[in-house]
Amino acid sequence: MTNPANPKFTDVRMKGFGSRSTVEAAVAWIDSSLANANAVDPDRTEPCGLFELTGRILAKDIVSRINVPGFTRSMMDGFALRADETYGATAYNSLAFQVIGTSFPGRPFEGTVRSGTAVRIMTGAPMPDGADAVLPVEFTEWTENTLTAMAEVSVGKNVGAIGEDVADGSVLLKVGRVLRPQDAGVLSSIGCSSIPVVRRPVVRILITGNELLPAGTAPTGYQIADANGPMLKALVERDGGGQALPQFVKDDRSSLRAAMLEPADVILVSGGSSVGQEDHAPEILKELGTLAIHGIAMRPSSPAGMGQIGSTFVFLLPGNPVSCLCAYDFFAGRAIRGLGGRSLDWPYAKKDVVLTRKLVSTVGRVDYARVKISGTEAEPLAISGASVLSSTTQADGFIIIPADSEGLPPHSRVTAYLY
Amino acid sequence: MTNPANPKFTDVRMKGFGSRSTVEAAVAWIDSSLANANAVDPDRTEPCGLFELTGRILAKDIVSRINVPGFTRSMMDGFALRADETYGATAYNSLAFQVIGTSFPGRPFEGTVRSGTAVRIMTGAPMPDGADAVLPVEFTEWTENTLTAMAEVSVGKNVGAIGEDVADGSVLLKVGRVLRPQDAGVLSSIGCSSIPVVRRPVVRILITGNELLPAGTAPTGYQIADANGPMLKALVERDGGGQALPQFVKDDRSSLRAAMLEPADVILVSGGSSVGQEDHAPEILKELGTLAIHGIAMRPSSPAGMGQIGSTFVFLLPGNPVSCLCAYDFFAGRAIRGLGGRSLDWPYAKKDVVLTRKLVSTVGRVDYARVKISGTEAEPLAISGASVLSSTTQADGFIIIPADSEGLPPHSRVTAYLY
Repeated sequence: MTNPANPKFTDVRMKGFGSRSTVEAAVAWIDSSLANANAVDPDRTEPCGLFELTGRILAKDIVSRINVPGFTRSMMDGFALRADETYGATAYNSLAFQVIGTSFPGRPFEGTVRSGTAVRIMTGAPMPDGADAVLPVEFTEWTENTLTAMAEVSVGKNVGAIGEDVADGSVLLKVGRVLRPQDAGVLSSIGCSSIPVVRRPVVRILITGNELLPAGTAPTGYQIADANGPMLKALVERDGGGQALPQFVKDDRSSLRAAMLEPADVILVSGGSSVGQEDHAPEILKELGTLAIHGIAMRPSSPAGMGQIGSTFVFLLPGNPVSCLCAYDFFAGRAIRGLGGRSLDWPYAKKDVVLTRKLVSTVGRVDYARVKISGTEAEPLAISGASVLSSTTQADGFIIIPADSEGLPPHSRVTAYLY
Repeated sequence: MTNPANPKFTDVRMKGFGSRSTVEAAVAWIDSSLANANAVDPDRTEPCGLFELTGRILAKDIVSRINVPGFTRSMMDGFALRADETYGATAYNSLAFQVIGTSFPGRPFEGTVRSGTAVRIMTGAPMPDGADAVLPVEFTEWTENTLTAMAEVSVGKNVGAIGEDVADGSVLLKVGRVLRPQDAGVLSSIGCSSIPVVRRPVVRILITGNELLPAGTAPTGYQIADANGPMLKALVERDGGGQALPQFVKDDRSSLRAAMLEPADVILVSGGSSVGQEDHAPEILKELGTLAIHGIAMRPSSPAGMGQIGSTFVFLLPGNPVSCLCAYDFFAGRAIRGLGGRSLDWPYAKKDVVLTRKLVSTVGRVDYARVKISGTEAEPLAISGASVLSSTTQADGFIIIPADSEGLPPHSRVTAYLY
């Protein structure tokens, strides 16, 4: 039963797909559409405060307009003095200085260090005029007024120069960077309170299916609770989309059509993506924009589709939760990451593993196989139906069997993607 | 100048550390204190809604109290019928059935499939009584009333059994799990709207230093903008702590003492961690609780300290931003992850790399060296001062030189941790 049916027998009201696109073709369509979208709207930015920027994508180069530090400072607790006056000092041949004051961070010593004198200084405190080195406290004996130096220091030793951390005019952070906790620190140190980041794509999640109850409702009779809404919301956030609470849409053409016309960067339609009588989304998408891809040679998720309404990306995701997850990960997530300025790659860690047993596939179709991993061994999960969402919670990750493969023998070395 | 000073020359008002703890001893103190904390409070949980649970830590096993699906259902669009009646059907030897109705998801066919009849059925729709298999639409010709079967199916084919996804009584998710997007889907499908997760540790960030201006303020004169506050807030969130906006504390004993007495699971004190005259935090911690570790044989961060006030962990982080980052990552982050039920391991991806040039270190001290990585090569950053925070933004990650090493020669194979 692996041969496709003869297309002449199909019926528009309920039929199989005539022919299916390859995964590569679908990905290529996304990538070229992303290039267009990002060319049209290169300034898809918004301001982001210092305390919120981790994980956001920097939208333009940050050039410092100041030096950090803006003054020479001590890198140690010790004594600021003239280096040449310490030459020859050891514990057995100590040298004496007069202590003429103290420099604290933010409260410098206002006088000048002249020959034979020293200023007590704290880490981070401004260097007093006249001093060119700091003798660390470990190499001293001292009282309030006198210092006994027991080691020598060279010029500049333990002194932080102006602009040592960040030089005026330097490019501190480059456009496209995924911002890190320490970037917030550096930006703060140059007096930046807000920076331009790539705006999060606005994603709308439309849940269709009259058999569905809202997520978190106890299933009753033949009604089942929506699993895709909470899953998709989490996936969208992972990929840098804005908060996207799922919206239930009645399974009729006019309700779905109206919902698909609301503004968004990306619309995800869960359910009704196939070619059956109740699958309205593909026809509506064709009517309102373009249905670029419909039906994909992969398992699960073959009834997925995608296209655009104006500049809005629309992904038609199968209602079956595993298919929905897989179609999201292969296609929709890529577009959301791309619109948000992120790497198009999967956000899953990779691991080289060895299969414990064979995995059967079919030439011409990409397979998404869930595996349990222990050490470097990956055991394919025995799953009767592709629809079993709990397989993706029991699994540690998945492997991809490419379209040109009939399957993988036991002990194959493959790359696993870790959930 | 690598020999420690003779301790007899030190002065309580401004001195070096007498002796330093090892990194291992500090980590061991954290781990044993965590074991105590988690033993005292095993029910550190809070409820979490379905739409918010990704990345949270599950606080107890989730056992399903229902079967998913709760009814047999079709896995394909096609026709529900009696499998034995299809035997022998092919495209050249088709068999006819009377179509007696349709089963939609949530709207089952109410009658019974008897000999010679079939029911049109959609993916996910309940199986009608009397039918035991689904013949996919691809292998049929049909009109409203008649079906021509052109392939045979075996009993149970394309039928999803009751409890196939989740069986009543099964443990769906285990305590301690880092929750995934698909877990939200599975939990929704069993009617769960909220689950117990480990409560986020309450972390307070206290910023000390009279020379500091609030983060995001332009530096002026000898005043510098606080870099540690925004960095620490982001690190705390990364490690699963609750929102922790930094709080400025005046650099005097009574202000700091009062702030350190406010309730929290973890208090981070930035600045004033050393043994200088203005370093109040260690003395206050000793007075209010225990100063378990103070001074650590590492670079940077050697003036870090830690202890507890009651059950509250207190980490004394050096004011220097790189030292602060390093001390946070080695110690404070570990405690926050542990209190939140997370893995104690660093949340950095690891990569095996080869050093492009030597890295010098000192026996007895752990070194935290920032590197730029291209391919599998890691180039140590040439940094004049350990205090240069921009080194952590220029670097792609860091490597650790253990205490028993004098340094690493060129071409050493080491593990890099990626920022």
